[in-house]
Amino acid sequence: MEYFADRMANIKASDIRELLKIAARPDIISFAGGLPAPELFPVEDMKTALDAVMTEQGRIAMQYGPTDGNLRLREQICERVAAKNNIHTDPEHVFITAGSQQGLDFLGKLFLNPGDYVVLESPSYLGAINAFKQYQPNFVSVPTDENGMIMEELDKVLASTPNVKLIYIIPDFQNPSGRTWPLERRKQFMEIINKYGVHAIEDNPYGDLRFKGEYLPSLKSMDTEGLIVYFGSFSKILSPGFRVGWIIADGKIVEKVNHIAQAAVLQTATINMMAIAKYMDMFDIDEHVAKILPVYKHRCELMIDTMRETFPKEAKFTDPDGGLFTWVELPEYVNTRELAPKAMEQKVAYVPGSGFYPKGDVNNGMRLNYSCSTDDKIVKGINILADVIKGALK
Amino acid sequence: MEYFADRMANIKASDIRELLKIAARPDIISFAGGLPAPELFPVEDMKTALDAVMTEQGRIAMQYGPTDGNLRLREQICERVAAKNNIHTDPEHVFITAGSQQGLDFLGKLFLNPGDYVVLESPSYLGAINAFKQYQPNFVSVPTDENGMIMEELDKVLASTPNVKLIYIIPDFQNPSGRTWPLERRKQFMEIINKYGVHAIEDNPYGDLRFKGEYLPSLKSMDTEGLIVYFGSFSKILSPGFRVGWIIADGKIVEKVNHIAQAAVLQTATINMMAIAKYMDMFDIDEHVAKILPVYKHRCELMIDTMRETFPKEAKFTDPDGGLFTWVELPEYVNTRELAPKAMEQKVAYVPGSGFYPKGDVNNGMRLNYSCSTDDKIVKGINILADVIKGALK
Repeated sequence: MEYFADRMANIKASDIRELLKIAARPDIISFAGGLPAPELFPVEDMKTALDAVMTEQGRIAMQYGPTDGNLRLREQICERVAAKNNIHTDPEHVFITAGSQQGLDFLGKLFLNPGDYVVLESPSYLGAINAFKQYQPNFVSVPTDENGMIMEELDKVLASTPNVKLIYIIPDFQNPSGRTWPLERRKQFMEIINKYGVHAIEDNPYGDLRFKGEYLPSLKSMDTEGLIVYFGSFSKILSPGFRVGWIIADGKIVEKVNHIAQAAVLQTATINMMAIAKYMDMFDIDEHVAKILPVYKHRCELMIDTMRETFPKEAKFTDPDGGLFTWVELPEYVNTRELAPKAMEQKVAYVPGSGFYPKGDVNNGMRLNYSCSTDDKIVKGINILADVIKGALK
Repeated sequence: MEYFADRMANIKASDIRELLKIAARPDIISFAGGLPAPELFPVEDMKTALDAVMTEQGRIAMQYGPTDGNLRLREQICERVAAKNNIHTDPEHVFITAGSQQGLDFLGKLFLNPGDYVVLESPSYLGAINAFKQYQPNFVSVPTDENGMIMEELDKVLASTPNVKLIYIIPDFQNPSGRTWPLERRKQFMEIINKYGVHAIEDNPYGDLRFKGEYLPSLKSMDTEGLIVYFGSFSKILSPGFRVGWIIADGKIVEKVNHIAQAAVLQTATINMMAIAKYMDMFDIDEHVAKILPVYKHRCELMIDTMRETFPKEAKFTDPDGGLFTWVELPEYVNTRELAPKAMEQKVAYVPGSGFYPKGDVNNGMRLNYSCSTDDKIVKGINILADVIKGALK
């Protein structure tokens, strides 16, 4: 297929995707996805908001709209990030995307020449790795511990790596690790990127889903040099099916992202932006998030407690303060990709860890999602997984 | 801004966009946009469809969905292109995009290495030129006459140009020219691309908007070698604000487009696909299109008749059989970009032709849109334009 572009060698179907297809079968207990719990979606309220938009402004909702997104929605996002994340900005610095995956594609397109370097946490979000791979960069992974990225290691990487264009991080309830950076690391991070003048994407889809521990300020709230490109999303707090997220960045970056969007997609769907804006005008989204939190807290604690009871001591795992995931690390000789079919035989699915490393060369991790499973499935599935893991130990 | 990628030198705001911003003012008679008439949107029916989706399948509509798109919608598209375009395919060969602009971005990403060649009609759609420019290709423009692309010239171009990866064409009611290829040219085109084995994008957003003349078969319906990538869209027949279009292509291409979408955007919004599918299940979209056609026919004829009465004989223009646009060619010494501010002083806006040429080096064309203006604005605006044009003639 030599008529395809060279970059296509980097853009492949993952075998994880094949796994997820099987994991979607109703007889499977799936900890593999990253889906919010659909029974918590505010379906009635969103229906009311859609109805109001179509009744009051149907022609506008069905027509083309501005590339940077609905103004009312951008105003609401400014109010919300001021209240929730201590980020003080204006609508001109907010750009609406059709979800954060699109933002990752745009930022890769904006910054990356083939061969440029992207710095990641190790492990990092596989969707970000795949978005950046389209632009043929090199990756450098910075070691992490239970408190996230190790800043001394980041400093070393930036001192020794040429052409670092972007750092990609999730400081709150990271995907896949579930880890959160403490305040001191956040301050160190900002000092380091300011020293080197390197841009960083702070991806924060889970920040509002804190069900334990204390609020920590976003990196963007400490950004004095315009180096942080902040990503937010309605996918995990409201609805992923509406595909609405946002970027907050320096004016020069927002302007370039606008030019990319004009060429790549024109705009995010008008009706979707207006419906979410109307939903937030008619209802209290924080009240909705407050309904989600105790459910996710309960499911997380049930999963972690069951793991503590049943997993062998060789299995280390995160006890997250929020978000959707816990992360299991097994002895290095255990290959979780080879283990996945064995769990699947017992009708339990998880995501093997290798996809969260750019070279796919670390094989002893597994990502488990707790947000989307009932209590009995969590207990039953974790018990089965415990046996599968024990069978793989030497 | 040397930290941005090299490709950004190709991704710029057009000065046309600045013009369009001013043209959006309510006191301006704008022939500049490419908007469908909002007073014809089926707002009530779409509200009913949205309501039904949220009532019957709200949780599914708000959740993540498959990358290739809602299955029911892909089935309906298969039925529709069989009936309307004589294209016989199955849902596995249909990929849903968030509008055709996204499809252009995906196909550029799939096919184009920097320096590869894209073959265009001259003039060609500026949105396609801008989408492809992101991937740093070279362009070759094939001369056209009143019947579209001149096939002898295409043959010469393909015989003499290395690394032609894609041909981009709009055989029906082309944007910007309003021209339609007759049957014989379509047959010749297929013979030529089969001879050279070159892929072509047949972009057909306006095909259903034929208000005069006879139906002509799509290129895709004559494609025996899987070389045609067919683009369709709901933007011009139903709603651009929902951002739903589709690609029909060979299996290998659909598979690769799926991989690109996974990395670039995940999926088109679930709610939007389900709402359009429900709309087509509950209502007759052809009945809706049948309501649009006489309005666009009338507006087109009024514009053309007024141009015939008022424009100087040096101005040549298309009398389109459908679609949204007519195209004016003035003597080569007239620069329509320089003329635009003079028309704007008189509160009339159009799109100068240079953006429809990849090098921006042909300056005597203007694109006029008739779908979105009332009768009195068409008559008044064309009379003003006639005077502005006369003032520019030697």
